[in-house]
Amino acid sequence: MSDVDNAQSLHIIPLGGLGEIGMNLMAYEFDGKILVVDCGLTFPTPDTPGVDVIIPDIDYLRQRRDDVIGIVLTHGHEDHIGALPYIWPEIPVTIYATAFTLGLLGRKFREHRIEPPTIQVQHRQPFQCGPFNIAFIPVTHSIVDASALAIRLPIGVVVHTGDFKFDYTPVDGRPTDLYSFAKLGEEGVLCLLSDSTNVTRPGASRPERIVGPRLRELIERAEGLVVAVTFASNIQRIQQIIDAAKACGRKVILNGRSMEANVQVARELGFIQVSDADLVPVKKFDQHQRSNLVVVSTGSQGEPNSSLVRIAQGEHRDIRVLAGDMVIFSSKFIPGNERAIWTLINQLFQDGAEVIHEKDYKDIHVSGHASEEDLKLMLALTRPRFFMPMHGEPHHLHRHRQLALQMGIPAENTTVALNGDRVILDQTGFGLGEPVPHGRVFVDGKGVGDVGDIVLRDRRHLSEYGLVTVILVVEKDSGKLLDRPELLTRGVVHEDESQELLEDARIAVEQALELGPRGMDFSDDEQATANDLAVRALRRFFKKRLGRRPVVLPLVMEM
Amino acid sequence: MSDVDNAQSLHIIPLGGLGEIGMNLMAYEFDGKILVVDCGLTFPTPDTPGVDVIIPDIDYLRQRRDDVIGIVLTHGHEDHIGALPYIWPEIPVTIYATAFTLGLLGRKFREHRIEPPTIQVQHRQPFQCGPFNIAFIPVTHSIVDASALAIRLPIGVVVHTGDFKFDYTPVDGRPTDLYSFAKLGEEGVLCLLSDSTNVTRPGASRPERIVGPRLRELIERAEGLVVAVTFASNIQRIQQIIDAAKACGRKVILNGRSMEANVQVARELGFIQVSDADLVPVKKFDQHQRSNLVVVSTGSQGEPNSSLVRIAQGEHRDIRVLAGDMVIFSSKFIPGNERAIWTLINQLFQDGAEVIHEKDYKDIHVSGHASEEDLKLMLALTRPRFFMPMHGEPHHLHRHRQLALQMGIPAENTTVALNGDRVILDQTGFGLGEPVPHGRVFVDGKGVGDVGDIVLRDRRHLSEYGLVTVILVVEKDSGKLLDRPELLTRGVVHEDESQELLEDARIAVEQALELGPRGMDFSDDEQATANDLAVRALRRFFKKRLGRRPVVLPLVMEM
Repeated sequence: MSDVDNAQSLHIIPLGGLGEIGMNLMAYEFDGKILVVDCGLTFPTPDTPGVDVIIPDIDYLRQRRDDVIGIVLTHGHEDHIGALPYIWPEIPVTIYATAFTLGLLGRKFREHRIEPPTIQVQHRQPFQCGPFNIAFIPVTHSIVDASALAIRLPIGVVVHTGDFKFDYTPVDGRPTDLYSFAKLGEEGVLCLLSDSTNVTRPGASRPERIVGPRLRELIERAEGLVVAVTFASNIQRIQQIIDAAKACGRKVILNGRSMEANVQVARELGFIQVSDADLVPVKKFDQHQRSNLVVVSTGSQGEPNSSLVRIAQGEHRDIRVLAGDMVIFSSKFIPGNERAIWTLINQLFQDGAEVIHEKDYKDIHVSGHASEEDLKLMLALTRPRFFMPMHGEPHHLHRHRQLALQMGIPAENTTVALNGDRVILDQTGFGLGEPVPHGRVFVDGKGVGDVGDIVLRDRRHLSEYGLVTVILVVEKDSGKLLDRPELLTRGVVHEDESQELLEDARIAVEQALELGPRGMDFSDDEQATANDLAVRALRRFFKKRLGRRPVVLPLVMEM
Repeated sequence: MSDVDNAQSLHIIPLGGLGEIGMNLMAYEFDGKILVVDCGLTFPTPDTPGVDVIIPDIDYLRQRRDDVIGIVLTHGHEDHIGALPYIWPEIPVTIYATAFTLGLLGRKFREHRIEPPTIQVQHRQPFQCGPFNIAFIPVTHSIVDASALAIRLPIGVVVHTGDFKFDYTPVDGRPTDLYSFAKLGEEGVLCLLSDSTNVTRPGASRPERIVGPRLRELIERAEGLVVAVTFASNIQRIQQIIDAAKACGRKVILNGRSMEANVQVARELGFIQVSDADLVPVKKFDQHQRSNLVVVSTGSQGEPNSSLVRIAQGEHRDIRVLAGDMVIFSSKFIPGNERAIWTLINQLFQDGAEVIHEKDYKDIHVSGHASEEDLKLMLALTRPRFFMPMHGEPHHLHRHRQLALQMGIPAENTTVALNGDRVILDQTGFGLGEPVPHGRVFVDGKGVGDVGDIVLRDRRHLSEYGLVTVILVVEKDSGKLLDRPELLTRGVVHEDESQELLEDARIAVEQALELGPRGMDFSDDEQATANDLAVRALRRFFKKRLGRRPVVLPLVMEM
């Protein structure tokens, strides 16, 4: 890469989503002004215990707060908009998005009690935001009203695909706008940034419409209740479930708060066709024959305490699953959630239900992301001079770069960048500038960012071995131990069944302190030593007796 | 099911592996004698933090210790033999297994310093063990020398498949013994218990031999070092890697302790063909050209601190991966390990290596378990009167039962049983007896079973919210607080950055105690109240200020 940095260059600064799936946030900087594209969150993993959600570190945007001129959102999924309630207050600029995205944001903003200024964007109608001339191009995805961006600058046009796939027969009748991409390609695209999520899937992605007939077949042969589980944001899928239910003479119950809320937004904006006569309120479940109902439910990931888990466990207030019922998971097994999903499915089998899911039933779910051939089609339409893969872990990005090479883009015209890189692009090529701060910020309860890596490391260590607190009470003046050491443990052994062991541990501490460098003298400046002796004695004791390494937390109290 | 229980019935009592994948242990009880088949472990999940391995609860066998007459092992995988070192000392009976299984056990027993009596079984040579006449039938699987069992009793023959698949061209030349199964079927099989692991995979399982040519193609086009990663117990796979390496003029380095040990056992027993001239010790890595070497390595699951992770991180003493190298994962992504494996693969991509794995490269790994058509073939060969699926979660077992119904077995002649059930089988049908104790026993360091569900619940809670210890020092006689409350926290907030918050927490405790029912009077019988007041005050405080629910551990010390 050349070492360029001048006014006529675009800085591409990923702060989330490059090197990972989720938490998408890209900063484009031109002529000193910064445009933010997407503002997503990601969900916690076993590595981040207790964390509610994870958002990108926007320290760089905070530093450049006065230069940020707008936030553009490609679509309404959480990994593209979910961090806004936390981040927008720090960069309170105008938010640009299409109608459905703004519809979803409305509820989110009300919950967080913020009122950002928003501008509803129309597809194919370019607008100016500082030096950036931006056009939203319609794309198909697993949410309606999704968009790619054509960002026009003095040095050329950058195409930012957002999440997309090519679906030539979308349920909502709004296909990916091939013409706009082709026209940009014909005119000349400086750089393409493209979604890498499904780069490892060969072939073309399957159309959404393929799911409808499968749903109908299943509902037709079902004898009892049908529960169809999907994502509350997948309006086209929900439409197909409703249509299949109607075709089979069944009415529909919407189950789950976000399911009800999103369908409401979609109805108001005309993205879904459903009449009140087709719907039954969940409270009236009992007043209808089970064989006349389809419940459309959230909870596809086996989320604990979700409505569907409660249904499976027989704890839902209104809905029961009984022998002879059918539960259809028209949804993805999101990596990391497999265990929870299988536990839910096992429970439903034990309830006596027939359970249909994508792991053993074809075309009951399709992805919203472009497979290998779609990604090549995007490259073929836009014919970019430069290429930078986005939205993916390193292995996705490297693989996507290989596709671009296969398509004839010279290796030096491609770059694999990760979060925090400052990629500098002008008409001659890619360069690398000073990296910017980046990372993950943990939202835990009311705290945003106060739980950091050290606290999480402590939590992980606590979870592996538990904790022993040892309290030494000493006389203020003499420094003599005034009492036996007290031990409190949690997560190490079952305390009631381990009195003998814990007594031995106390003795081990006492012996260590007696044999310590200064005997029993724990006057002020020796506290650290007393601490250390006690901690080391306990570590040794638990290692030897149990082969475990609990966290040992000492406290010396002076009386 | 009928309610039968007499001397001429067989009790089938699963203690592990029914309702789960892993930890297989089946007890067969006839005429008052108990035969144990397999004795496996399972690995911990994020739900069982800090646990090393999990083994079945054998409380029932302990109660019936004098009646247990032998342990029969179908093959040498950890989920079939791994619990022996913990369980055998409690039921110290003779262990029956084939040569390779005993070879692997030798090392395990030496490590645990036990010397169980063993008898090496020959395939197709029935032997008597109490009332059980047992024949080992050769089956193909992802380990050599694996067996199904034909257990002959006065009431009929029970076929217990163990893990198996049908591979008509096995690399070791020892195919599944179709004749033995067919002959049993012709004579009449009372009951089949069959492996459900891959019941959700359509079609026939793919042969092991398909992998060899793919390995060779890859190694042929590799320009730098090749690292081929697989399971140390998959001797046929290791053979194929060695053969492919030789065909490409490369020498082989065995990397990983279990890789070296298992290949050693396999060589001694004639299960693998490799000469010293083909091998290079890992220490001599540097003395050979990278392009002349294939490293065969363990670590396919991204295990932390595994040799392969150290290689990827540039921290291995001898081996480095550089740009232009190729890493081939000829292995399965075991469910639950995906995150660790992808992290490893991302690292290798960042090192510059080309990484080949089963998620995007066909036939670089094949499963050792029977797919749907193989399972039907097993049913077709053995033509059992009764059928009971085993080795699987509930959804696998229910699905496998459906296959049996498709094959014409009457529904009432099948049963889906789970761990702890006592299935009673005679010539008239299945019955259910008194369930037996069952469960999971956690091995943590030196402790077997002392970490129970309560300790794990505490660990999980600690990991989610961290812990606050509050120490109240009171005067023995008056019960007055002698000092301000002390707080110790871990995993809640970063203590150094939260002094103000913690001071507020202390004040909250003090106020709660002052307002308490008895004011400052914490004499002996009021300790619980003082505890309670402090705990409740802190819970309320952290919930309100941080939206978190740390574990609060109180201690009242009397001076």
